[in-house]
Amino acid sequence: MGLACQLSIQAATVAAGCALYWLYKRLSKPKSVKLTYFDVRATPGEKIRLALALSGTPFEDNRIKFADWPALKPKTKYGAMPFAEIDGVEYAQSGAILRWAGGLGDGSLYPSGMAERMKVEEMLGVSDDLQRAWTPAFYMSMKPEQFGYTKETAPVQKLREKFMKEEFGKFITFIENELKQTGAFVCGAKPTIADCQLYPQIHYFSRGIADFVPKDSLEPFPLTRAWIARMQALPAVKEFETKAGYNA
Amino acid sequence: MGLACQLSIQAATVAAGCALYWLYKRLSKPKSVKLTYFDVRATPGEKIRLALALSGTPFEDNRIKFADWPALKPKTKYGAMPFAEIDGVEYAQSGAILRWAGGLGDGSLYPSGMAERMKVEEMLGVSDDLQRAWTPAFYMSMKPEQFGYTKETAPVQKLREKFMKEEFGKFITFIENELKQTGAFVCGAKPTIADCQLYPQIHYFSRGIADFVPKDSLEPFPLTRAWIARMQALPAVKEFETKAGYNA
Repeated sequence: MGLACQLSIQAATVAAGCALYWLYKRLSKPKSVKLTYFDVRATPGEKIRLALALSGTPFEDNRIKFADWPALKPKTKYGAMPFAEIDGVEYAQSGAILRWAGGLGDGSLYPSGMAERMKVEEMLGVSDDLQRAWTPAFYMSMKPEQFGYTKETAPVQKLREKFMKEEFGKFITFIENELKQTGAFVCGAKPTIADCQLYPQIHYFSRGIADFVPKDSLEPFPLTRAWIARMQALPAVKEFETKAGYNA
Repeated sequence: MGLACQLSIQAATVAAGCALYWLYKRLSKPKSVKLTYFDVRATPGEKIRLALALSGTPFEDNRIKFADWPALKPKTKYGAMPFAEIDGVEYAQSGAILRWAGGLGDGSLYPSGMAERMKVEEMLGVSDDLQRAWTPAFYMSMKPEQFGYTKETAPVQKLREKFMKEEFGKFITFIENELKQTGAFVCGAKPTIADCQLYPQIHYFSRGIADFVPKDSLEPFPLTRAWIARMQALPAVKEFETKAGYNA
């Protein structure tokens, strides 16, 4: 057998490897995904919907009305939503499902290289820190007894104004610093699961739906406003938001 | 060339692939890791120390005294610890560094298979939920103004007793349910980064160091107590804790 023939065998081996990898990726693509969450744009469920939409993964968007939640709650794994049924198996915890969804499609939503992945995880951490800082002021109106108050004594306005004055700008600046470098999305030229989580979270503060959070709170942050517009202009996000019936 | 020879070429190709992968893993092993955090066993830093110890990765355990933190804080990326210098590059956010550390050694701390990884991420989510539930009661003594109180009016005892009565057992039961199935660690026969995070977090509630949290709070949970003992008996953990000067 000549050299050409030997090289053909090598090439065939490489091709077989590639085919196996392609088959593995195809087989590891979920056949059915059903995501269950409240019928709202709140981050825990919305970040996963966006990641599924951006990865081009069809999914059943099962939206639960608030009135139906008390009956469903005791049947769930941890008394919480979102949860997802993936190929017939139920998984809970939004961070788990988000990271899984980030591996779908071409995988660019959750890149595997050390530097890229660390940046995505770092920004998810910043997002979690922001949520932690906002939580007392947010829940003060819904669950005042968690902080030793009643509905009548809960200092909702005081805490929300304090948060907007002392904390909000600090976190948005962390994000603006990244956007200044990338000129596009939070972790680089393409959207990642960090954008999927941060976009509904930050956008919320400019939608005028939280008491004592002014609608123009993002006015001093032009890079953040441009990034929100950039997210909304992505064809997959645009299609998803139109279908979901959101009006910007 | 005969069949035997052709097979040899195939085998050589596979071997070359394996060698390249081995080389890649060796090269991707960090040359230097310096972890900076408070000189305490609190979960954000401790979970990473444990993951590094369990993966057999040598690291500089840079412990900051509380008195030295105010001067260091403004120099950090997000005004927070822990952070890590890995091969000369600084990374922040404990969740990011923990997941990276989980990929070191034989990789078993953060398995890559879909079902195994989902279980690890799910339990990290349960741990985060537990921390979220405990946070108001915990910080009420340190940062009462975050909840609209002063040092004098902060209902520390009331909230901590409420947490222990209404929330603590619920979360520990989630963990006991897993331990019942595995008979060993939270996600299976081997420890993972979920154990690295949950062990210091849960162990804390039995160390008698938080006011109004009784030292025997884990008394009704024998599987959890056995798991804590199992964690402490792991040679790498035992060596790390002895070196750190902890006394159980």
